[in-house]
Amino acid sequence: MPTTLQEFESVWPRLLEDLTEHCKGYNLSQQSLDWFRKQLNYNTVGGKCNRGMSVVDTSSILLNRTLTGEDYFRSAALGWMIELLQAFFLVSDDIMDSSKTRRGAPCWYLVPEVKMIAINDAFMLESSIYILLKKYFRQEKSYVDLMELFHEVTFQTELGQLCDLLTAPEDDVNLDNFSLEKFTFIVIFKTAYYSFYLPVALSLHFCGFATPKNLQTAMDILIPMGEYFQAQDDYLDAFADPKVLGKIGTDIQDNKCSWLINQALKKVTPEQRRLLEENYGQKNNECEAKVKALYHELKLAEFYENWEEERVADLRAKIDRVDESEGLKKELFEVFLKKIYKRSK
Amino acid sequence: MPTTLQEFESVWPRLLEDLTEHCKGYNLSQQSLDWFRKQLNYNTVGGKCNRGMSVVDTSSILLNRTLTGEDYFRSAALGWMIELLQAFFLVSDDIMDSSKTRRGAPCWYLVPEVKMIAINDAFMLESSIYILLKKYFRQEKSYVDLMELFHEVTFQTELGQLCDLLTAPEDDVNLDNFSLEKFTFIVIFKTAYYSFYLPVALSLHFCGFATPKNLQTAMDILIPMGEYFQAQDDYLDAFADPKVLGKIGTDIQDNKCSWLINQALKKVTPEQRRLLEENYGQKNNECEAKVKALYHELKLAEFYENWEEERVADLRAKIDRVDESEGLKKELFEVFLKKIYKRSK
Repeated sequence: MPTTLQEFESVWPRLLEDLTEHCKGYNLSQQSLDWFRKQLNYNTVGGKCNRGMSVVDTSSILLNRTLTGEDYFRSAALGWMIELLQAFFLVSDDIMDSSKTRRGAPCWYLVPEVKMIAINDAFMLESSIYILLKKYFRQEKSYVDLMELFHEVTFQTELGQLCDLLTAPEDDVNLDNFSLEKFTFIVIFKTAYYSFYLPVALSLHFCGFATPKNLQTAMDILIPMGEYFQAQDDYLDAFADPKVLGKIGTDIQDNKCSWLINQALKKVTPEQRRLLEENYGQKNNECEAKVKALYHELKLAEFYENWEEERVADLRAKIDRVDESEGLKKELFEVFLKKIYKRSK
Repeated sequence: MPTTLQEFESVWPRLLEDLTEHCKGYNLSQQSLDWFRKQLNYNTVGGKCNRGMSVVDTSSILLNRTLTGEDYFRSAALGWMIELLQAFFLVSDDIMDSSKTRRGAPCWYLVPEVKMIAINDAFMLESSIYILLKKYFRQEKSYVDLMELFHEVTFQTELGQLCDLLTAPEDDVNLDNFSLEKFTFIVIFKTAYYSFYLPVALSLHFCGFATPKNLQTAMDILIPMGEYFQAQDDYLDAFADPKVLGKIGTDIQDNKCSWLINQALKKVTPEQRRLLEENYGQKNNECEAKVKALYHELKLAEFYENWEEERVADLRAKIDRVDESEGLKKELFEVFLKKIYKRSK
């Protein structure tokens, strides 16, 4: 049985206490300590925790048993470290993107007394990963690998964010900047490594199955799966019913280097390209409607649906070829794919 | 012979190439790669490199020989990792403090095309530390200790920055927030750990003398030395000749929780406190002059000079008691102290 958000969240208070105790050891003032605890809760808790929970579920599949007690706690602690890493990225991305809300609440930097302190708060979310890693995994032989894994995935995500910021600056719409190659780089680096590869790599280390071959197999399946996931996300942004999706897509107005615009750019006539140049990235509903009409004219929804089937068939074939002899399990990839395929939100 | 800035800087191009090669391994676009190299140079190079160079000098004293070839390179590489850590802090502190210039040039976030990308750039400066550490120290038995040392000092500096931001918000002058206790915490955490303890701790690891006792002795001397250094910095900000100091002090107008204001608050009458409350932290030269006049009335310069003699005597006594049996050397602390004592800039 997969873990529930409630079970996973029940681990958080103990980690919060660990971080609090660590700070008390430095004689931190009560004012600073209260602030740190508040921002940890505000920024780390309240999401769907798909990434964090998948460490528990993957470990349970790899070990072929339900995790309980300290086993559950330790795999969930690794999961919460991904959530801390994500919180570090989201707090700072929201500042860089001038976002307004996150998980239905104001972005942390927009809370009146916070403002630019949010930058230092983001750093402290990242540092918290290594405090917890040291407390719970210092004695493991995988400790160095776990630290290096977090370092590498952090840097990869930063590279993806850099490429994204340089490719699609909010204030300078230039479709010449876009390409499917750049789209792919941004998706893999900014999202796929930390969202798809990292949970499984952590589970493999946790379960003692992190052989070079298993790690490579996991990467070879999960990185393309992350690409597929993001293309789907971009498709849903324009084509899903906002009532089902739970939000109104804004990629066209936000000048996003999305899968759809890159596919459109490959299909357009010169006149159609001029239409995109004039209307993409404009904070204006009429411009957005013109872009969407062109997406329909280009039959991008049908194109996506065919492309999806191909990618999923490809992923299934790869999963089918997984060598389970070093402890890896096809099932864990099937579980990932099942959560994504044909989702509508 | 101490190393020179020129020798130390001659190591940088090789580290820049290492970071470049690392990114090329990820197939980073030329545009992103050019950006990364540019910001690495802009933000890391051009300072006095006192912290970085002291790793080389301390190592040379500990090993009792001039470092050459790969020895020089590797100790300088550790020194550059401190400079990268400092660059990470300075780029982000400048955003948080709305600073205008750094090392005589515009702060990175104020360079027109940069703006909030500077936040992600700061992250990449931090990540660079661990890329270089892995490349050059992975095979050493001190590798885990070096990673943990950087993690811990990074978090300590973030705690100091948090306390500083909460104690002295730019827009809310309230002297009740200040206290010598908070001043001491901020100085130790925000400055002393990474500027004084970190270079020596890295040298001890590099030279193979990082026994628990040596690390503790280094901390017991270098943290108070960092406190003394910052008090002196604050004294010079108000009392040094700007022509000699090379800059005009702005602590009073900037509402800084400085050593002087905290000492003044301990000495004032209720009327004098009112004067401080009305004039401290105001962006106004007349208010600043009134605060300075009160500093003179309270004889803070003389008080500082006596206090300095006491602290230096205290530090010398501590240095004199250093046990050299595990490879530590009194001389390295004397060299640090000599650079600070009676400096005028």
